[in-house]
Amino acid sequence: MSVAPWRSAIARALHQNRSLIYARYLQLATVRTNGRPANRTVVFRGFLEDTDQLKFITDARSEKVEQILQKPWAEACWYFPRTREQFRIHGRLILVGNDNSQPILQKARYATWQQLSDAARLQFAWPDPGKPRTNNQDAFAPPPPNSIEPLANFCLLLLAPVEVEHLELQGEPQNRWLYSYDHQEWSVKAINP
Amino acid sequence: MSVAPWRSAIARALHQNRSLIYARYLQLATVRTNGRPANRTVVFRGFLEDTDQLKFITDARSEKVEQILQKPWAEACWYFPRTREQFRIHGRLILVGNDNSQPILQKARYATWQQLSDAARLQFAWPDPGKPRTNNQDAFAPPPPNSIEPLANFCLLLLAPVEVEHLELQGEPQNRWLYSYDHQEWSVKAINP
Repeated sequence: MSVAPWRSAIARALHQNRSLIYARYLQLATVRTNGRPANRTVVFRGFLEDTDQLKFITDARSEKVEQILQKPWAEACWYFPRTREQFRIHGRLILVGNDNSQPILQKARYATWQQLSDAARLQFAWPDPGKPRTNNQDAFAPPPPNSIEPLANFCLLLLAPVEVEHLELQGEPQNRWLYSYDHQEWSVKAINP
Repeated sequence: MSVAPWRSAIARALHQNRSLIYARYLQLATVRTNGRPANRTVVFRGFLEDTDQLKFITDARSEKVEQILQKPWAEACWYFPRTREQFRIHGRLILVGNDNSQPILQKARYATWQQLSDAARLQFAWPDPGKPRTNNQDAFAPPPPNSIEPLANFCLLLLAPVEVEHLELQGEPQNRWLYSYDHQEWSVKAINP
């Protein structure tokens, strides 16, 4: 497949900001079950092979999973500090859990688990996130989970974009582009900043 | 008034991250008129005097204004890179435009305009944001607006929090607190990270 036209701008931003570990952090907004917005930082884990879908991970026990099941739409806001540019990535989330029966997606879930650090894997064996704090400190030092076989609550989360807005603050004046996916094709137009 | 209990944590984070100009940038999620989320970077401009309301600015012509008028709920996600902590600030947005008749808010709108840099004020005299790019370069170099009297499309935007979640990634394990506003009072509890 050919990659989406906004991919080269993201690749360039990632490269130019590579000295900042947090340039791979972005903010993912979803809609709560009561219709109000939610927003949290997630770590970009690359694109799903042969697609333009962004990879993240999440815990099946987290609130965002319930939100996504009710409304799969999301907008990621990704600010790159060094190059002073922002991407707003609007699209549909695809949750790949333990029970997902699509071989390609399940394989990607396994691979993502295997690429995690030990510390990141361990968090999936911690007590229920968001519940009242567990006083037993040992609960946060469980035996390390198997590094090959993901825990059942480990989910791969994919964002399939349908609209990407790119804002360059460094332009004179600023530059802003809107990429839209329609009829299986991406188009782009320049818009006012 | 006494400030909310989460204010000291934000003040400390701002202080400890003060060397990073973008530590004052955060991501504000709202809900689009079609019910899907929107998310963009905004600049924190302090708290409204004698309140716990966060100040931002926006343009009356921007899409978020339409979104806010339909649904005033928002969640700001604020990540501090140096101290590796995140605040999720959930609350109601209050738009203070040209026609706002509350003297305190209108005074704050004027003061915020006057504190802006010339470059920031100039953007409110630029062509309609989000519309197809204006080819006339002169449109982006208008005469500087009056520095005392805000342009009619300049809005002060306030976020009045009802819930604040604070996550410290540096803890061992991580620390996470949930502050909730209920019956005119803030309460706090520790929750699992």
